[in-house]
Amino acid sequence: MTNAAGSKATTTETLAGLSEGEVLARIFPRLPAAAAALLGPGDDAAVIAAPDGRYVVTTDMMIHGPDFRLAWSTPHDLGWKAAATNLSDVAAMGARPTALVVAIAAPPHTPITVLEGIADGLRDCCEALAPGCGVVGGDLSASDVLTIAVTAFGDLEGRAPVLRSGARPGDVVALAGGLGQAGAGLELLFQRAVDAQGNPNAELAAALRETHPDVLAAQFTPVPPLEAGPAAARAGATAMLDVSDGLALDGGRLARASGVAIDFDSAALGDRIELALGGGEDHGLLATFPPDVMLPDGFRALGVVTAAPATGAGAGAGSVAGAILVDGVPHTQNGWDPYRGWDGAAG
Amino acid sequence: MTNAAGSKATTTETLAGLSEGEVLARIFPRLPAAAAALLGPGDDAAVIAAPDGRYVVTTDMMIHGPDFRLAWSTPHDLGWKAAATNLSDVAAMGARPTALVVAIAAPPHTPITVLEGIADGLRDCCEALAPGCGVVGGDLSASDVLTIAVTAFGDLEGRAPVLRSGARPGDVVALAGGLGQAGAGLELLFQRAVDAQGNPNAELAAALRETHPDVLAAQFTPVPPLEAGPAAARAGATAMLDVSDGLALDGGRLARASGVAIDFDSAALGDRIELALGGGEDHGLLATFPPDVMLPDGFRALGVVTAAPATGAGAGAGSVAGAILVDGVPHTQNGWDPYRGWDGAAG
Repeated sequence: MTNAAGSKATTTETLAGLSEGEVLARIFPRLPAAAAALLGPGDDAAVIAAPDGRYVVTTDMMIHGPDFRLAWSTPHDLGWKAAATNLSDVAAMGARPTALVVAIAAPPHTPITVLEGIADGLRDCCEALAPGCGVVGGDLSASDVLTIAVTAFGDLEGRAPVLRSGARPGDVVALAGGLGQAGAGLELLFQRAVDAQGNPNAELAAALRETHPDVLAAQFTPVPPLEAGPAAARAGATAMLDVSDGLALDGGRLARASGVAIDFDSAALGDRIELALGGGEDHGLLATFPPDVMLPDGFRALGVVTAAPATGAGAGAGSVAGAILVDGVPHTQNGWDPYRGWDGAAG
Repeated sequence: MTNAAGSKATTTETLAGLSEGEVLARIFPRLPAAAAALLGPGDDAAVIAAPDGRYVVTTDMMIHGPDFRLAWSTPHDLGWKAAATNLSDVAAMGARPTALVVAIAAPPHTPITVLEGIADGLRDCCEALAPGCGVVGGDLSASDVLTIAVTAFGDLEGRAPVLRSGARPGDVVALAGGLGQAGAGLELLFQRAVDAQGNPNAELAAALRETHPDVLAAQFTPVPPLEAGPAAARAGATAMLDVSDGLALDGGRLARASGVAIDFDSAALGDRIELALGGGEDHGLLATFPPDVMLPDGFRALGVVTAAPATGAGAGAGSVAGAILVDGVPHTQNGWDPYRGWDGAAG
């Protein structure tokens, strides 16, 4: 087989040829340890420290087909992204990521090197973005579809969680992290890394990594600004969420939960406004701050929170809770939907 | 389509015809709330109470094909079993189950009633086996293969976790829960609920539910003795685990972790000793207790822990750490392996 890096894989060792114990023995040494683990992997369950008597929990699955193409992403990319996307949800509560559990289902013909690469990606992401965060447990299964399910944990360190529902009219809307970069990478891949039949092509994707490293990296190995989550909480953020489905859709969620509208300043959205508003997977942190707050490091202002009267007679589109406006003009929301957005191909 | 209960499904509403928000709106009201949830579903992450400053975590995936057949299991069965198997791993640490997160990936053509049934099964299992335990978060994805990934949490209530590694020679080996029942159910299904081509058949499975309700229920809707986990911890259990892959394989894991061997008494293993030793999915709790301890309610003695000198010259098979013996005679271990044990069929 030819993998996403364009090189020939030389191994013929597959999962079907190894016992579960042998697979685990190959993977475990590659995984990062968690500083918070009172008991790590290997028993029926792990035991994790929760110093302030609470813990933050989030879960997210990555599926071959709708979420990634094996012709485009390396196993290392998949492990990195599976960790990064979950850690970002932890940070979006204002918490510090502490631990992950990882369940992987893979076809029996999968080379063991694929699982090793996923483990390496999980490790490298934790070490780079959340030092001390590690993998405390997991599960291996057989499936026709490569599936990576991660559950991530975090420590609020005594702070109140930052919810989606606290934004108030007059608050500043600010973002830490990228905007439209991951979406630009995906757009490029669908335009220029498919063959004549529309199938994902590994060689073309490898070439794009050379010519467009930034947007491809944003798509394959996102670097969410995890430190910005606790920083926003300390600075008094009134609301926050992880931007995974696009600024318009996720901003709309924050606005709806808060009973407000958001008015973005087009000048702050860059040259490709539709991509900035609609492109998903950037995993930046969108937060709102009282107007007198100095934005924490990493955040830049994108707009303001505006009042949204209850719907009813005379309520315009721009004044409905959850509405997204750009320069005062209502924006039709769009973004990713897991069932409507997938074309059914795996590649 | 005809479902596992033998009735015609009348809905034509599929996941592909609904938005993620619409699907969630159909599922969420069916899920049980968790008493320990300081913040439940709906934000980037949940916040759960950890009163003693620690929490127990385990994760397990169920995959259409290797783990269940849709012609045999109802959606309600799947939700029940996904909860029960994970809650059992929590109890096996001596902890009380508190919360679950559930990630589900399903083909776009899946009727919404399938997800509703899974949600109902999750709820009914929590309410029946672990009142107060609830679902605090989740994820929905599209996939060609129906996949249910659960991560479960528990509270040690101030106790030390009961590990696999604490068994000592002379300890009593005891079990709470079923033995070989779930395996007998699976055996029956493969013998008598397949058509001439060997494909799983819904009508035949429905008939078996009538004629053999106990073993079919043990396979489809296991009732792990969750209360026995904390009870064993309070009684001073030296080691414990959940028997999911068979008594021989899981007993061997406990013995290996403890550096001992286990000698089962054949008279305690019932009439079908090979099924008792090799049949998986019973989700009983296997624990070891000092010989002077009165076994807690629900446990019955199955054998004794024996010394296992380090391997080397003169070490017989029966004296190796991890060895399983029956009436003093070494038993060749067997059990379920996720990659070697699956025939590749889904059904």
